[in-house]
Amino acid sequence: MATLVLLRHGESVWNAEGLFTGWVDVDLSEKGEEEAVAGGDLLLDADLRLDVVHTSLLKRAIRTANIALDAAEQLWIPVRRSWRLNERHYGALQGKNKAQTREEYGEEQFMTWRRSYDTPPPPIADDDPLSQVDDPRYALLPPEIVPRTECLADVVDRMLPYWYDAIVPDLAAGNTVLVAAHGNSLRALVKHLDGISDDDIAGLNIPTGIPLLYELDDNFEPLKKGGEYLDPEAAKASIEAVKNQGKK
Amino acid sequence: MATLVLLRHGESVWNAEGLFTGWVDVDLSEKGEEEAVAGGDLLLDADLRLDVVHTSLLKRAIRTANIALDAAEQLWIPVRRSWRLNERHYGALQGKNKAQTREEYGEEQFMTWRRSYDTPPPPIADDDPLSQVDDPRYALLPPEIVPRTECLADVVDRMLPYWYDAIVPDLAAGNTVLVAAHGNSLRALVKHLDGISDDDIAGLNIPTGIPLLYELDDNFEPLKKGGEYLDPEAAKASIEAVKNQGKK
Repeated sequence: MATLVLLRHGESVWNAEGLFTGWVDVDLSEKGEEEAVAGGDLLLDADLRLDVVHTSLLKRAIRTANIALDAAEQLWIPVRRSWRLNERHYGALQGKNKAQTREEYGEEQFMTWRRSYDTPPPPIADDDPLSQVDDPRYALLPPEIVPRTECLADVVDRMLPYWYDAIVPDLAAGNTVLVAAHGNSLRALVKHLDGISDDDIAGLNIPTGIPLLYELDDNFEPLKKGGEYLDPEAAKASIEAVKNQGKK
Repeated sequence: MATLVLLRHGESVWNAEGLFTGWVDVDLSEKGEEEAVAGGDLLLDADLRLDVVHTSLLKRAIRTANIALDAAEQLWIPVRRSWRLNERHYGALQGKNKAQTREEYGEEQFMTWRRSYDTPPPPIADDDPLSQVDDPRYALLPPEIVPRTECLADVVDRMLPYWYDAIVPDLAAGNTVLVAAHGNSLRALVKHLDGISDDDIAGLNIPTGIPLLYELDDNFEPLKKGGEYLDPEAAKASIEAVKNQGKK
């Protein structure tokens, strides 16, 4: 049996401003930093001894991990990072205002881009300043694999190899593993873990800053579907807040 | 040719209070955090693109790396940590006041403990609350290898395996490598790199928060002995300050 802990980063500056972020490397807001501390306090209160942390390459997830681990007095554990844990690439919507996009394109198109499983937003142009094609952190990736846009199905496809090749071996060694990542990379992982259908995943929101704990069996399947939030009350409230994003 | 960058952590809370720290996991002071930002700014100004960072398991080095890399816009690079980069274990002196120790034991004994190459301070007792024998971060080390005290020669002995097995392979792959560590683990490394004798190493102080850059040849020997500080003026001032520690 192994323990997996998922932690979605707290509010970023662009979350606060209601902008689509995707792969743009936006920092945490002050509120986001506080959420990370609170997440770390929950780990500490639960007496959770972590063995390794996996993060994306985006600073809002990395700083969430650093701040939470510091609060949990476990800043020293081994760290692994991968672009495969990055947020969904939001294509040409990156940097756009969510409420304006909703008004401009209408509720249906807006919700399709946000929640449909297999319809990505329009791709971002390689010469767009918010494209990641020339970003040094992806310099070792052949350009064809750097996303220009992604739907959730794309995120599942590029996240799963990291799950199988990097996270599962850590779990198989008996470690308690923390994954600090993003709304959609974690939805992709939870979809896989809980066997959620392509249709039903649209209704799943993961709260920010609240550790979600899964006990896994020998096949790396959850003993309890949906896992367990370390603060179930706060999780419920946060899920409601995420649902209302883009509404004015 | 490969590039190695050494960064000694900034002031810790116990540095500020004049206490021997060693393996006790004391946090950075506010001044220490500022030093780390300044170190990161120097990396950014020098346009140094780092490929990987190695840290000790102590939070003053880890947080120095995190803060400096954030300032240098490279928080996303791969991270490796090892107890072999930890500060020298200060034995029974851990937690003791430096100036009081100097008064109590006299200048000669004080300087022997601080600067002799092969005389360690008295060992700390395993049941001392400032011992690291039961520290979870060393739980995977057999108890006989967890230090109870160390002289600089001991630090060289336990640091070099990490140099050869973890850092050199990174350099051999052509990476630019940052090592964020401590006064004495970095002195041990510089002693090795620059071929400094057991006697002469006593006179070497490494300034805090100022990146020290070594270009290495194919044998991993420095092209220029002593390397090059990214801010030579500040390095000189800082070295003087370190020399005066323990004087009132």
